[in-house]
Amino acid sequence: MNGVTASDGPAASPDGTGAPRRRGRPPAAESAGTRDRILDAAREEFSARGFEKTSVRGIAKAAGVDSALVHHYFGTKERVFEAAVEVAFGPALAERDALLEGPLDEVGERMTRVIIGLWENPVTRTPLLAIVRSAVNNDTAAAVFRRLVASQLLRRIAGQLDRPDAELRAELAAAQLVGIAMIRYVIRVEPLASADPEDLVRRVAPVVQGHLTGP
Amino acid sequence: MNGVTASDGPAASPDGTGAPRRRGRPPAAESAGTRDRILDAAREEFSARGFEKTSVRGIAKAAGVDSALVHHYFGTKERVFEAAVEVAFGPALAERDALLEGPLDEVGERMTRVIIGLWENPVTRTPLLAIVRSAVNNDTAAAVFRRLVASQLLRRIAGQLDRPDAELRAELAAAQLVGIAMIRYVIRVEPLASADPEDLVRRVAPVVQGHLTGP
Repeated sequence: MNGVTASDGPAASPDGTGAPRRRGRPPAAESAGTRDRILDAAREEFSARGFEKTSVRGIAKAAGVDSALVHHYFGTKERVFEAAVEVAFGPALAERDALLEGPLDEVGERMTRVIIGLWENPVTRTPLLAIVRSAVNNDTAAAVFRRLVASQLLRRIAGQLDRPDAELRAELAAAQLVGIAMIRYVIRVEPLASADPEDLVRRVAPVVQGHLTGP
Repeated sequence: MNGVTASDGPAASPDGTGAPRRRGRPPAAESAGTRDRILDAAREEFSARGFEKTSVRGIAKAAGVDSALVHHYFGTKERVFEAAVEVAFGPALAERDALLEGPLDEVGERMTRVIIGLWENPVTRTPLLAIVRSAVNNDTAAAVFRRLVASQLLRRIAGQLDRPDAELRAELAAAQLVGIAMIRYVIRVEPLASADPEDLVRRVAPVVQGHLTGP
């Protein structure tokens, strides 16, 4: 199983076509390209500055469009951030069903590969760094993180476990992977920062599996 | 074993007396009180604003002293931050030897109790939040974190394990605890955010032990 896929997951566009969600629709050919350009600029801005210091005006400037167009496609800054998070987790959300459909005694390895794959891929690592930096520093961004990641990903995994403490199990499993992401990719402590990804999967997958289905 | 102790660890003062490290020493009676007041203000400022947005001037103002006095006691902003981190990890560093002296097959539980104890205690949680927020957003703060926590705490634990991959083991064990801190205390995802601390220790200590001494 390959944990790394393209970065434009299905959640990037609310109706799957890249079409705007408001009136005043621009020419169709321009629409998808402009929206994607704004979203790329937003990911860069959120990543470089974090949620608080990023402005809709700054995103618009980086994308080479008018601020009104950012509002047109996304509404508020919180909604732009949410769209950027959805793109970052698109591959994980897209693989969620595959992740859940395989044998339950291998779900730990599949979850570990998906998360480490997202962080190893520079395309998805940038928005993930933005999410982590923002969620750590800002309550609005933390709420977006809770809503998308906790609800959409962890609760779905928990739903497959069929145990009364399933949600806590899923969160402790996620905690192992979040902590590795923090130490390896954010704080960059050696030797973990330079460890071979396959070595990490081999060491960590059984721990994640143990949290999810162990005694 | 009680993982929670007083917050003024031995590392708070470079020579253990609270005396300044520069010339122009103030009256001895005022010295320790002023230094502690600056350090308390620094912890509040770093916690509320993070490393980047905190200024020596702001710390001085919050402590009710002149900026020159902050420079007198600590030098640069980075050195004030380092002192605040040392205070935050004082209890862990103070317990480090006890942590290492006990039986090796219980080191996972001791490490888990110390770290969860630091986060459960509001006195130590505030500076820990400051450290995490700052280290995630600022390379200078991340370097302080690497130097103090990774070198002083994790490498000492690794030194007791007598295995070639000891440092990586210590970091994977720390990653489990860092991830729990992120999800429970920083992002506050339920049910982990409200889980009973003893239940957490029971679930997590064997995982930490497995990383450190498992096959």
